[in-house]
Amino acid sequence: MDRIGVKIAVIGGGTGSFTLLTQLKHYTSHITALVNMADDGGSTGVLRDELGVLPPGDVRQCLVALSQSERVRDLFNYRFDSGTFEGHAFGNLFLTALEKMTGNFADAVETAADVLNITGEVHPVTLDKVTLVMKQSNGVITEGEFNIGHADFGLNRHPDMELVPEAALNPASHKAIMEADLLVIAPGNLYGSLAPALIVPGMREVLNATNAKKIYVCNLVTKPGQTDNFGVSDFAREIERFGNFKLDYVLYNNDTPSHELLERYAKENEHRVSFDASALAAAHYEAVGGDFISKEPVLAPSSADPIAHTRTLIRHDGAEIAKALMRIYFA
Amino acid sequence: MDRIGVKIAVIGGGTGSFTLLTQLKHYTSHITALVNMADDGGSTGVLRDELGVLPPGDVRQCLVALSQSERVRDLFNYRFDSGTFEGHAFGNLFLTALEKMTGNFADAVETAADVLNITGEVHPVTLDKVTLVMKQSNGVITEGEFNIGHADFGLNRHPDMELVPEAALNPASHKAIMEADLLVIAPGNLYGSLAPALIVPGMREVLNATNAKKIYVCNLVTKPGQTDNFGVSDFAREIERFGNFKLDYVLYNNDTPSHELLERYAKENEHRVSFDASALAAAHYEAVGGDFISKEPVLAPSSADPIAHTRTLIRHDGAEIAKALMRIYFA
Repeated sequence: MDRIGVKIAVIGGGTGSFTLLTQLKHYTSHITALVNMADDGGSTGVLRDELGVLPPGDVRQCLVALSQSERVRDLFNYRFDSGTFEGHAFGNLFLTALEKMTGNFADAVETAADVLNITGEVHPVTLDKVTLVMKQSNGVITEGEFNIGHADFGLNRHPDMELVPEAALNPASHKAIMEADLLVIAPGNLYGSLAPALIVPGMREVLNATNAKKIYVCNLVTKPGQTDNFGVSDFAREIERFGNFKLDYVLYNNDTPSHELLERYAKENEHRVSFDASALAAAHYEAVGGDFISKEPVLAPSSADPIAHTRTLIRHDGAEIAKALMRIYFA
Repeated sequence: MDRIGVKIAVIGGGTGSFTLLTQLKHYTSHITALVNMADDGGSTGVLRDELGVLPPGDVRQCLVALSQSERVRDLFNYRFDSGTFEGHAFGNLFLTALEKMTGNFADAVETAADVLNITGEVHPVTLDKVTLVMKQSNGVITEGEFNIGHADFGLNRHPDMELVPEAALNPASHKAIMEADLLVIAPGNLYGSLAPALIVPGMREVLNATNAKKIYVCNLVTKPGQTDNFGVSDFAREIERFGNFKLDYVLYNNDTPSHELLERYAKENEHRVSFDASALAAAHYEAVGGDFISKEPVLAPSSADPIAHTRTLIRHDGAEIAKALMRIYFA
């Protein structure tokens, strides 16, 4: 396919970024994934603890999403299933070994990008080693992305989020946002993944300085104990609070998942994100509804491609969102 | 440099192969490293035991020797220095993850070769999982390359060597030997590394069938308890016994290492390999003496490039041997 010259920067890190990047690379080679660096769970957490490296997990997912090299892409997502290395994704070891060898995570990501033959670029939002800290209005403090992602906020919603120690925005991320035509905030864990990217000191300034159209792709389902009863405008409000900026567009799903799927989610206290069309019509941003739920059958989790299948069954349709983003670019 | 079209196959696996391949790649892109598959020590041994894979260590060294991609080459030799992965060479994990993912070690090596952008090819001599077994004339049986490499043979020299279970020659290795102009047996551990490559069933037939000039590059020092008092012709005789073929050329060093180095080796009961010029002159092969000892200062071992520095201080001069091989090709 002939590509469009649009420059796109995508902020996020996990499954949501993966879905978007996988599709956006078909439209442009000027695509930059800006990745949250507060991850401390699973294989990534062990590597951080044992070897003192920056968290490789979300960077790996973004690199894989943009890769043109099928075999190496599968390799990067391969998880050892037994022995000393059980549970570790190979790509995490790749990034960790390179960082240990060179002492420089940015160089490590660049080498991995070469090996994976990626379209575009992947940059950590910060190159500082940070811990995410959440402060609730009742004084409760929770440390670490994994703990925060699994916390029940109780009645004290809308917590303050902070990175410790104070971090600096990666200059490469600053440059990508300044040069972007579209700045996309990917769907993802609001407090665990998106907040730590948006609150990096320097991010606020660049979000307000760039001429990019700023677009948030809203989550599909609520998270129990954290975003219960949130509508699209509630999610958007939190995004703007963390980044201290104004969104230009919010993409939200207005299709209904199957009754069976909704029931399965309801058992976990997860519900479809609601929207009030008239309220959204009155918002300062343009709210763009669409049929953004993937109709692809959900495959069984596989060790070769665990990302897309294990975390959610109601998934975004990356291709439809990519088209909606192109419509905004050409609007 | 413009390359010569000579086709070279190198049998071996460890440091000796590394030194030769590193230099030979400057002369030709038609170079194939054929690697012993009985290795079971160190990082490689752990991976074999825990994950049931073929031994990656010597394959990794040959891939690195032929690589054109400096950063990735250093990465493949990087050894984790702490945590769960301590002592493991990254390249071993790379080959192991790929083999586990694809179920096919040959494919794994091919993908690694792509990533490393190597000149030529690397092939295991066999794709079967084998254990090296040594039978001495007094009935003592020793199993495993590591154990054999560290055994004291006592008075029962010239042991019989066997692979268990019976293995088959890798067809890619067969093809490389048949097509070669020069078939080089690299210097290395005679019983632990060279024997297991030469005794693979099918090897004998192809060594006798090929029109390649067959050249053995003799070791520089003897191994205590195994090859004490061996001269060049003794090494050559054992090589011919294992492969059941006739050598055309034997390259041997006739330069003298420094007194200081010789004394250091003597403390470990390792001595310079002797040669009797008149006996060699009468041999059925052509014995080619030369100044084959490296004059490069020996660097401290480094985690980025441990191969060349940790195993020996009296080292072959790969560049000089490569030139001698070119002279034989053009003879």
